Amino acid sequence: MTLPRVILCGKDVPVWTKAEAKEVFNGIADVVLDESTSRADFLASFQPGGPFEGAVGFYRRNNSTARIGRFDKDLVSALPSSVKWIAHNGAGYDQVDVAACQRKGIYVSNTPGAVDDATATTALYLLISAFRSFSKAERDIRAGAWKTLHPPASAHDLTGKVVAILGLGGIGLRFADLVHAFPMRVLYHSRRKFPHAPEWCEYYSADRLDEMLATADVLSIHVPLNEHTVELVDKTMIRKLKKGAIIINTARCRVIDEEEMMRALEDGHLGAIGLDVFYDEPNVNPRWFDFPNATLLPHVGTATCDTIKSMELRALGNLRNS
Amino acid sequence: MTLPRVILCGKDVPVWTKAEAKEVFNGIADVVLDESTSRADFLASFQPGGPFEGAVGFYRRNNSTARIGRFDKDLVSALPSSVKWIAHNGAGYDQVDVAACQRKGIYVSNTPGAVDDATATTALYLLISAFRSFSKAERDIRAGAWKTLHPPASAHDLTGKVVAILGLGGIGLRFADLVHAFPMRVLYHSRRKFPHAPEWCEYYSADRLDEMLATADVLSIHVPLNEHTVELVDKTMIRKLKKGAIIINTARCRVIDEEEMMRALEDGHLGAIGLDVFYDEPNVNPRWFDFPNATLLPHVGTATCDTIKSMELRALGNLRNS
Repeated sequence: MTLPRVILCGKDVPVWTKAEAKEVFNGIADVVLDESTSRADFLASFQPGGPFEGAVGFYRRNNSTARIGRFDKDLVSALPSSVKWIAHNGAGYDQVDVAACQRKGIYVSNTPGAVDDATATTALYLLISAFRSFSKAERDIRAGAWKTLHPPASAHDLTGKVVAILGLGGIGLRFADLVHAFPMRVLYHSRRKFPHAPEWCEYYSADRLDEMLATADVLSIHVPLNEHTVELVDKTMIRKLKKGAIIINTARCRVIDEEEMMRALEDGHLGAIGLDVFYDEPNVNPRWFDFPNATLLPHVGTATCDTIKSMELRALGNLRNS
Repeated sequence: MTLPRVILCGKDVPVWTKAEAKEVFNGIADVVLDESTSRADFLASFQPGGPFEGAVGFYRRNNSTARIGRFDKDLVSALPSSVKWIAHNGAGYDQVDVAACQRKGIYVSNTPGAVDDATATTALYLLISAFRSFSKAERDIRAGAWKTLHPPASAHDLTGKVVAILGLGGIGLRFADLVHAFPMRVLYHSRRKFPHAPEWCEYYSADRLDEMLATADVLSIHVPLNEHTVELVDKTMIRKLKKGAIIINTARCRVIDEEEMMRALEDGHLGAIGLDVFYDEPNVNPRWFDFPNATLLPHVGTATCDTIKSMELRALGNLRNS
């Protein structure tokens, strides 16, 4: 019996091993590990007799991008017709051109639920740091300054403050749960009211967005990046936040106009920011480093062995079940 | 009518002003601001005709220590018999010799409840950072290394892990509430079982302490420093924690044997530490800076304008009501 062939695309994965992945597909599919060094090399592997010949599905991780690039329109259109499934390991779809896949009849899955806890925890950490000036406090102590530069007036408690969540999907909802423990008052805006949100999550529709922004002490971004959300948080939105407000971004940088956010931090309109995402990762605009009230993480929102394992099992399971 | 005189000891207070403090005591006491430059200067102010003559009470902050020292046995025994009350702004009593005060018939108050939220939030921040290697991640990005040095295997989710709390007072209980949101399993040890603890807080008496230590992924310290707790967390206790466990300390450094904690981090028995307190503050043993898995804050557990204001009002209120 010949089993269908699936490709694991994204090597150097610290948690699972090829052996474990093979076990997931035991009796269901033959597993081939992608070891291409370039996009050309990758596409050549589909030739007759090549390791990917007749492959029906992919598991992909973002760390394959450095070798073969995003699954963009060009790459997707060059895939042979045998390919029917792409199981993307990640919550964001911006690394795979889903429209191009649809046109070719390729199904795409992602791993939304698996990232909720780790990403929301990251947002909570950035939020605490921004309110309390902890990133700056740690830089002070490590520079030998103890806390002479840490006046309490620049630090605030979270309890009783107001957080506005942009996008109440799985991550936003998990984040709402965590900040509710303080408690903070939780407002949210999404295209639609979320029917299963707890009653303490106060919905603000588009026509009341200004009111939400004027009420919030902090705005936390939890929308995916797509054509509707590119620079959704623009100069107008940023300036409608109250003076001294905080922005937290653990979603995608391009949801915010980065230049305008920097300007608002510079002129004191924003009190602090906490960022896990940047415009041109892994490059970071070095001007961010000059702001004392910035907490900066290198896109590690989901980087835990627990969450990565759970994402991998979800993505592999998606592929196996397809 | 002559009002009793009270002294505010601890200037350069960023939140309250002398005017606001005077209002708290309006019609109740005359308020004198301590501006002594030394202990001798301070004690001389009690002389007849001096600004402190006949004073009945003090409000004190730890930042007066640099000028006049701790309220130790020597200072307390030199106070005139007019002094009946010391309202200490802080949760810890280690800056005031309470026994010496008792012997002289001086009542001492502190501000336990006011610090709970801010200190527990600090412990939560250190806990997230320790589990996720966020302090290191931020040092990486600021050093231009993005996250090449941040393998997910060194980072873990909090959810589902086990936290052991040493001392379930106001801060410990507040911390328990915050980590319960993830949820984490919460164990605690105190001299006595706390009757009002939520049922999900599992009590471990002294004869089951070893079991608690062997079960915990993290040990968080929330006992005051006194003769019973000096180096309570010694080599034996540290080594009974499981390999890779985390220690969080937002209480007082001397509750732990700092040398043994450092040795355990060095040889990998401890996986990470998060510290807001140090052996000889404001001096920090520079060896701490060499550990990648250490998150270090300069004793800013209560340093927020909200909490400091609330501590001040509590301490002033304690003095007013005495």
